[in-house]
Amino acid sequence: MGVGHHEAAWRHPRTDPRALDDVTHFQHLARIAERGTFDSVFLADGVQIWGDVRHTAAGRFEPLTLLTALAQVTDHIGLIATASTGFSEPYNLARLFSSLDHISGGRAGWNIVTTAQDRSAQNFNREVNTEHAERYRRADEFLDVVTALWDSWEDDALVVDQATGVFADETKVHEIGHKGQFFSVRGPLNAVRSPQGHPLLVQAGSSEDGRSFAAAWAEAVFTAQQTHAEATAFYGDIKRRVEAFGRPADGLKVLPGIVPVLGGTEAEALALAAELDDLIIPARAVRQLTELIGIDLTGHPLDERLPELPPVSHVNGAKSRFELVRDLAERERLTLRQLLGRLGGGRGHQVVAGTPEQVADHIELWFTTGAADGFNVMAPLLPSGLEDFVDHVVPLLRARELFRTEYTGRTLREHYGLPRPASRYSRVHADSLQA
Amino acid sequence: MGVGHHEAAWRHPRTDPRALDDVTHFQHLARIAERGTFDSVFLADGVQIWGDVRHTAAGRFEPLTLLTALAQVTDHIGLIATASTGFSEPYNLARLFSSLDHISGGRAGWNIVTTAQDRSAQNFNREVNTEHAERYRRADEFLDVVTALWDSWEDDALVVDQATGVFADETKVHEIGHKGQFFSVRGPLNAVRSPQGHPLLVQAGSSEDGRSFAAAWAEAVFTAQQTHAEATAFYGDIKRRVEAFGRPADGLKVLPGIVPVLGGTEAEALALAAELDDLIIPARAVRQLTELIGIDLTGHPLDERLPELPPVSHVNGAKSRFELVRDLAERERLTLRQLLGRLGGGRGHQVVAGTPEQVADHIELWFTTGAADGFNVMAPLLPSGLEDFVDHVVPLLRARELFRTEYTGRTLREHYGLPRPASRYSRVHADSLQA
Repeated sequence: MGVGHHEAAWRHPRTDPRALDDVTHFQHLARIAERGTFDSVFLADGVQIWGDVRHTAAGRFEPLTLLTALAQVTDHIGLIATASTGFSEPYNLARLFSSLDHISGGRAGWNIVTTAQDRSAQNFNREVNTEHAERYRRADEFLDVVTALWDSWEDDALVVDQATGVFADETKVHEIGHKGQFFSVRGPLNAVRSPQGHPLLVQAGSSEDGRSFAAAWAEAVFTAQQTHAEATAFYGDIKRRVEAFGRPADGLKVLPGIVPVLGGTEAEALALAAELDDLIIPARAVRQLTELIGIDLTGHPLDERLPELPPVSHVNGAKSRFELVRDLAERERLTLRQLLGRLGGGRGHQVVAGTPEQVADHIELWFTTGAADGFNVMAPLLPSGLEDFVDHVVPLLRARELFRTEYTGRTLREHYGLPRPASRYSRVHADSLQA
Repeated sequence: MGVGHHEAAWRHPRTDPRALDDVTHFQHLARIAERGTFDSVFLADGVQIWGDVRHTAAGRFEPLTLLTALAQVTDHIGLIATASTGFSEPYNLARLFSSLDHISGGRAGWNIVTTAQDRSAQNFNREVNTEHAERYRRADEFLDVVTALWDSWEDDALVVDQATGVFADETKVHEIGHKGQFFSVRGPLNAVRSPQGHPLLVQAGSSEDGRSFAAAWAEAVFTAQQTHAEATAFYGDIKRRVEAFGRPADGLKVLPGIVPVLGGTEAEALALAAELDDLIIPARAVRQLTELIGIDLTGHPLDERLPELPPVSHVNGAKSRFELVRDLAERERLTLRQLLGRLGGGRGHQVVAGTPEQVADHIELWFTTGAADGFNVMAPLLPSGLEDFVDHVVPLLRARELFRTEYTGRTLREHYGLPRPASRYSRVHADSLQA
């Protein structure tokens, strides 16, 4: 997230907002994360302007191109890009992710989003977005097509015999012949199978539809969880769903977001958190919250509690984020201004302010008690917050034998301990030989 | 084109077809071209498998991601990617090219194609492609949308005042409010204006519709011309059309493709050309020709002349390429086998086999007599053919003061001597102030 995950990060003197225009800033961040032996960098994305143009740090870079630039200066770290199934063709996205996987030597991941906002749909020929369940039906079929395209060249399809002129064994290159509700795609993909077979599949929806989709497809789930109780409940639920799909529970990694606000003392950390929250511009935050949960809160008095919110079944936006915000506001009886402060640090992700030991303790607790398989570390300020985490928290996690000291694999799948999928066409071929 | 533009390049002992899987191979090519002070590298592309899988060197890399990787190891050379208006959304393509332009510091170009093949359409929910004129109507509207999105942030929209929290002047960030036959796009783009304002627009269609489109939009035309007479006629026609659109004639650069087959002597060059043609596999070449011109020639005897071809009005594929092939075959009374040999080197682009002096003479003649403003140099073998051109032909062109000895600009527009367009919204603003 540019110069930091706190919504006012760009205003803080420890950031340089001009770095948003500098690809070497992002390369520097990736190198810091690689020094910390992180599994991956993870780029959020959307297909619209978010929030209030006047007060929001605007970006320049599209994730797949930016990650390609990061791949050039790193050797191990995974490269996860967010892309929506709502407004692209599966052939195009299959190809972009395959290409990133080839270029990076097997480090590509795709954070699959369905995109809730009408404002996004308005950039793609619609006045309003399609409804929630249909978005997930489209996503499900989209994944059918994309994974079939990734499989369409078997791993051993290439022959490359200069003397005979045989480049590929055409019996190992497959049309996919997909005809469905949303897509008809003949195939094969015009790219040979990539190093990971399938770029890693990540998903970030936590609604009922989102969880089912994750259980069917995702190998990692990026989730917003405010409390340990909610996190363990989510963790248990999603693992059960994965098993119900006939998949091993550890085939899907649960990665809550965490915003570590670090200080040499707890008081220093809390002071930094307060300093950042003071930089929030309420009008901007209200507009972003309105877009985030799909309920118009502009004009609501800042120092009053939220109005009664409609049942989630009436929401066509990001349902799980809506519920998180509603539950947080009700549980803690927050005014709108207080809620904005709670959301400003991580837009719904947990903010942990404290010393490196306190943050490491928090991570250890969640990691060892069934709340998380790992974390999406969302530093409030960049690069400083990431440097602090890598230099002061990662060594503690390593000393406690909770985290690797060096990379043992080269691909993102290897970092996650996940297998490389065989081509579905190879399996069919093997089965038919056995029968 | 991977390991060379000759269709059998990958079979030649001077190429390593395994390099197709190696991004450093392409980076090496870009560095060679930059050593030769080329304006740009230019990546062809399509959205289907071409030709005969068994005998065709298959690729891995998608152009926008590959060019991003090339941007990391070069400083000046332009980076032109082919992308189709037929099967993408303008918001997505506008963003990808904007991102490449940002990442490369103003070196991005877009070779706009409309995509003729049914086989491509079958990867995008259609059984048959839309008809030729409709493809160009869609392309025209596509460009309206993309250029408006590129303009949607005025150049001076950014304020970035940490103290006041004002990141952008919202009066300089514009919704585009496009509602047309093919697209409805609200905007603005979620990326600030890129270094070139508009990434350079290139076009490669030479049909009637293609020429009109080029005259309206293109700043460079990549064209296949077999003879000097045809090339000068095309050159004159397209420049007149550009002026008819109210644009300066030199605002569009005419760049015929040229395949230089180089040797220390003419005999050596001709021997290399023959050696390459001998590596062509006729069955593969017939299939590719069939796809190229949209007429099924499989089964036609190799040593007989072509059957009578239908009038171009009955062709829904690439009309100008169809005419080029038909005219070449008729003019030279070629058998199918001979035609395949003539096309194998450059798929319709002129093949010039000779010494560096002979190739330089050819280039000088075309360049100084109204046939070309420059050339798309399509080395038959890579990297060797490009190295030969840079080391032996470029010095001759420099000595004749036909070509630069060093870069004088940093952006692709500067290399081409083309202006950086102002945002249409800035102009409106300026005009309204004057009125």
